Amino acid sequence: MERFGPDELTVDGFLGGRLRIAQPRAGYRAAMDPVLLAAACPAQTGQSVLELGCGAGVASLCLGWRVSGLAQSGVELQPAYADLARRNAAENGIALEVIEGDLAQMPADLRARSFDHVIANPPYFGPEDGTPAADPGRERAQREATPISAWLDAGLRRLKPEGRITLIQQADRLADLLAGLHGRTGAITVLPIAPRAGRAARRVIVTARKGARTPLQLLAPLILHSAPMHSRDAEDLTEIAREILREGQKLPIPR
Amino acid sequence: MERFGPDELTVDGFLGGRLRIAQPRAGYRAAMDPVLLAAACPAQTGQSVLELGCGAGVASLCLGWRVSGLAQSGVELQPAYADLARRNAAENGIALEVIEGDLAQMPADLRARSFDHVIANPPYFGPEDGTPAADPGRERAQREATPISAWLDAGLRRLKPEGRITLIQQADRLADLLAGLHGRTGAITVLPIAPRAGRAARRVIVTARKGARTPLQLLAPLILHSAPMHSRDAEDLTEIAREILREGQKLPIPR
Repeated sequence: MERFGPDELTVDGFLGGRLRIAQPRAGYRAAMDPVLLAAACPAQTGQSVLELGCGAGVASLCLGWRVSGLAQSGVELQPAYADLARRNAAENGIALEVIEGDLAQMPADLRARSFDHVIANPPYFGPEDGTPAADPGRERAQREATPISAWLDAGLRRLKPEGRITLIQQADRLADLLAGLHGRTGAITVLPIAPRAGRAARRVIVTARKGARTPLQLLAPLILHSAPMHSRDAEDLTEIAREILREGQKLPIPR
Repeated sequence: MERFGPDELTVDGFLGGRLRIAQPRAGYRAAMDPVLLAAACPAQTGQSVLELGCGAGVASLCLGWRVSGLAQSGVELQPAYADLARRNAAENGIALEVIEGDLAQMPADLRARSFDHVIANPPYFGPEDGTPAADPGRERAQREATPISAWLDAGLRRLKPEGRITLIQQADRLADLLAGLHGRTGAITVLPIAPRAGRAARRVIVTARKGARTPLQLLAPLILHSAPMHSRDAEDLTEIAREILREGQKLPIPR
């Protein structure tokens, strides 16, 4: 069985240390994005959630920390990351079923099921962007082997009627996200995430509801840092960013 | 010849009274949107500009007021509005060629030409949205008979290589706009326009450049009003909104 050894891992605090999550020292390392993704998912106690490409499990575990009594599943292509997600879930006392498999060829046991929510933080780099990461696991987590349209197709197929998909992506992929959702979902919300007030968004959270016909909403940006310039002080987070990133609170998205 | 009579018109000030523009009392009446559209178009002296569906000419005249020495053309389906746009251009001493015709079947003299810039403020209501306007001219200016994809097709065909299209629309039509531009243009910029800080955008200005491959940018919103709530005081415009709407200044859009 492929798994990371203890010396290949670091243990990092998330939600102000409320979660302790092991991540590969040299591989794909989560930062703010899966935490923001979890904060944007409006899952409620008793509902089911599927995370596509769950990696070490950061988004699902942040969501499970905030909302008790969820039935959470994750699908992950890389066996060592799937193993790590299972271990992280156990260490934090959060129930998370992790299924190894390729979301573009959804494993049969997931194909037979549907979910109230699907969440995903798909790779940010297109097939030809930038320099490959030296670490193969990190490269696979960051670079799009499966096109984003396949992530959206897989996610929408696994949603129940009226189920909601929630995604975080680089802001410059907004058109790709909307292309996969428009006409097939409704009640689309677009939440720009900007480092500072007045700046272009770096990330975007997009949500959509299967079977809805409500119009798209382009929301006010979530601003992460309060200082007008880059500051050495790591704690120049805005109040709302601090509540989400350090306290695990929900991102208030009108729907 | 179809034209509005004097008692069918009102004359309204735009750009703080710098332009005096006649509009039909009961027909489609421009407010902020064409002024914002003009402010977002980066046309420079010596360049050519085509406005699709120019109506009474407000956007083209605001642009011509700000930038001298443009070669401006407009195409307008409704003869009485085309006539009015010509009269408004003459009254304000701004050169604007107005061609009567259907942009979905572009008049031959325009089909033979290409432009550095195309601007448009397409109808905001889809074929089945809302209540029809009592006035037939207003109804035609507001409601989409020609789908927005046809506006984009017509606009992109009339652009020179490297030419830029600039559009203003209801924010909930963002996915339609991006669907028509993505993959066929680049350097797309999305500027949300929100009534107040923290509110969802009501309008969106989208620009794109033909032949470019630069990634999409999701910009910080333009905020129109400074008071946190609706105020009776019409002059609670933000500084930047006041400069654009009352002084005819340019909207600074990074590209």
